[in-house]
Amino acid sequence: MALIVTGTIGIDTIVTPHGHAEKILGGSGTYFAAAASFYGPVRLVAVVGSDFPPEHLSTLMHFKGVDTQGLEVRAGSKTFAWGGKYHANMNTRETLFTELGVLGEHPPKVPAAFGDSDFVFLANSPPAVQMGFLDQLPKRKIAIADTMDLWINIAKDDLLALLKRVDGLVLNYDEAELLTGKANTIAAGRAMLALGPRFVVIKKGEHGALLVHRDGLAALPAYPADQVIDPTGAGDTFAGGMMGYLSNTGHAIDDPGSYANIRQALVHGTVVASFNIEAFSLTRLRTLTKAEIDARVKEFTDMVRV
Amino acid sequence: MALIVTGTIGIDTIVTPHGHAEKILGGSGTYFAAAASFYGPVRLVAVVGSDFPPEHLSTLMHFKGVDTQGLEVRAGSKTFAWGGKYHANMNTRETLFTELGVLGEHPPKVPAAFGDSDFVFLANSPPAVQMGFLDQLPKRKIAIADTMDLWINIAKDDLLALLKRVDGLVLNYDEAELLTGKANTIAAGRAMLALGPRFVVIKKGEHGALLVHRDGLAALPAYPADQVIDPTGAGDTFAGGMMGYLSNTGHAIDDPGSYANIRQALVHGTVVASFNIEAFSLTRLRTLTKAEIDARVKEFTDMVRV
Repeated sequence: MALIVTGTIGIDTIVTPHGHAEKILGGSGTYFAAAASFYGPVRLVAVVGSDFPPEHLSTLMHFKGVDTQGLEVRAGSKTFAWGGKYHANMNTRETLFTELGVLGEHPPKVPAAFGDSDFVFLANSPPAVQMGFLDQLPKRKIAIADTMDLWINIAKDDLLALLKRVDGLVLNYDEAELLTGKANTIAAGRAMLALGPRFVVIKKGEHGALLVHRDGLAALPAYPADQVIDPTGAGDTFAGGMMGYLSNTGHAIDDPGSYANIRQALVHGTVVASFNIEAFSLTRLRTLTKAEIDARVKEFTDMVRV
Repeated sequence: MALIVTGTIGIDTIVTPHGHAEKILGGSGTYFAAAASFYGPVRLVAVVGSDFPPEHLSTLMHFKGVDTQGLEVRAGSKTFAWGGKYHANMNTRETLFTELGVLGEHPPKVPAAFGDSDFVFLANSPPAVQMGFLDQLPKRKIAIADTMDLWINIAKDDLLALLKRVDGLVLNYDEAELLTGKANTIAAGRAMLALGPRFVVIKKGEHGALLVHRDGLAALPAYPADQVIDPTGAGDTFAGGMMGYLSNTGHAIDDPGSYANIRQALVHGTVVASFNIEAFSLTRLRTLTKAEIDARVKEFTDMVRV
């Protein structure tokens, strides 16, 4: 199985009640790839500017499983930069600034060597860009997309076209309401199934996640973390753990057992994300081991067992 | 085992996005007792005024397991009345009016026939009143209290005194933060254990519940309901299902297995509450059967299985 992710690499400035960090490595592709790399190789397609700090590249290369052949360093362009500030409860944040930089230009290309990728994750990007990536990945067995409120608001037709072409959708629960007009999360999930995907993962941050799948409904709390230092990347590391697990098991979407497999994948996503929020940027994931993940999967399984 | 609940009986006026209902039967004691009655007998201690509508009494008596010997009808007094309006997402509500009536007078007495009660639930009341009930229940094996933001704000010393005398506390997650000053729910739960109780159940409405217990931590999503008509009484029916299950199994708080038993009790609370919110007042509970509860416990167990 060959897992590929298309997404962003960014330079983040984060303010939380626990402190702040300037110009740290971030971005959806970064977090996803680092998280997925605990399960096997992951191909990263992303673009940065020539201002991208070498130490950030070095951090990314630290994750041996991440194949950076698809990382384009575009001369004369600037790396995407984002600043965010979290409120006291860590559930809500405000954007301090967004400098699109290279993200405002044409997207990177999928390298020829990645053309046989069969497990595809389209991290948050404009849906037209996500469709462009899909066009370059004809061997895909399973494609899952993330999205955000911005595209629901300004590119809904593109997003609806994308949804007809993916197997799964991952989004936050307020976005599920925005997309469907349904305030009830389950009703929103079912409405999204009618738009194309076989399943939708609705993320609720510290309240866990819901899986609304053609074969059933599953609910999962978050890992009960008693200290959250920086929630940035929680959704992307959740998706990375989930897709890493899925591609590692190799179930295609049509396999019997696919539904059960996705449920177990959500547990891994939950656990990897729970480590990520223990520190800024990739600090915690850098020292994380698969043994620690497995131990927490066991602990979490016990916590939610009924 | 003899289960007793002290709480309110009220006349509610409820406005939700699905409609509104005037002067319907409500109150913490009402919802708790109806919910607990599916598991066995439950003794209700509460007071109403002489204006209490006979049809509401008839509704309450419909639940055969509810022993209404402790229901005082106080001549010349008015029944507690409350009006609430839910916002579109059903997660937040505003109080339209509160007419304390008989709740502003002296509390009802625990009848002598109830003096041997050993499973005690103190539904939300001023903590000094809750302590007064405890004084009348010397045979208790397990006592659990509910509380609310109002008492944390205006009667915190009483509440802290109460917490030293109960085994368990049930409260909402914003109240847990208010009581402890800790925005992180797990940290708040642990801080509350230091105040006296052996365990705290932190309710998160549609996001489920957390159990922070001296013996461990458990997390449970809510039953994924796709239609919520009226969330009123969700917390009280949750507590009623939980205590009904606990008293039915008869485990005392010191029994080995008590922690595991409380975890299973939370599943029953979750399920009974999920039925309650399907209609206004006790409408759904009136036709509910134990077989339906058991079937949904099974369904829910499957949904959260990892």
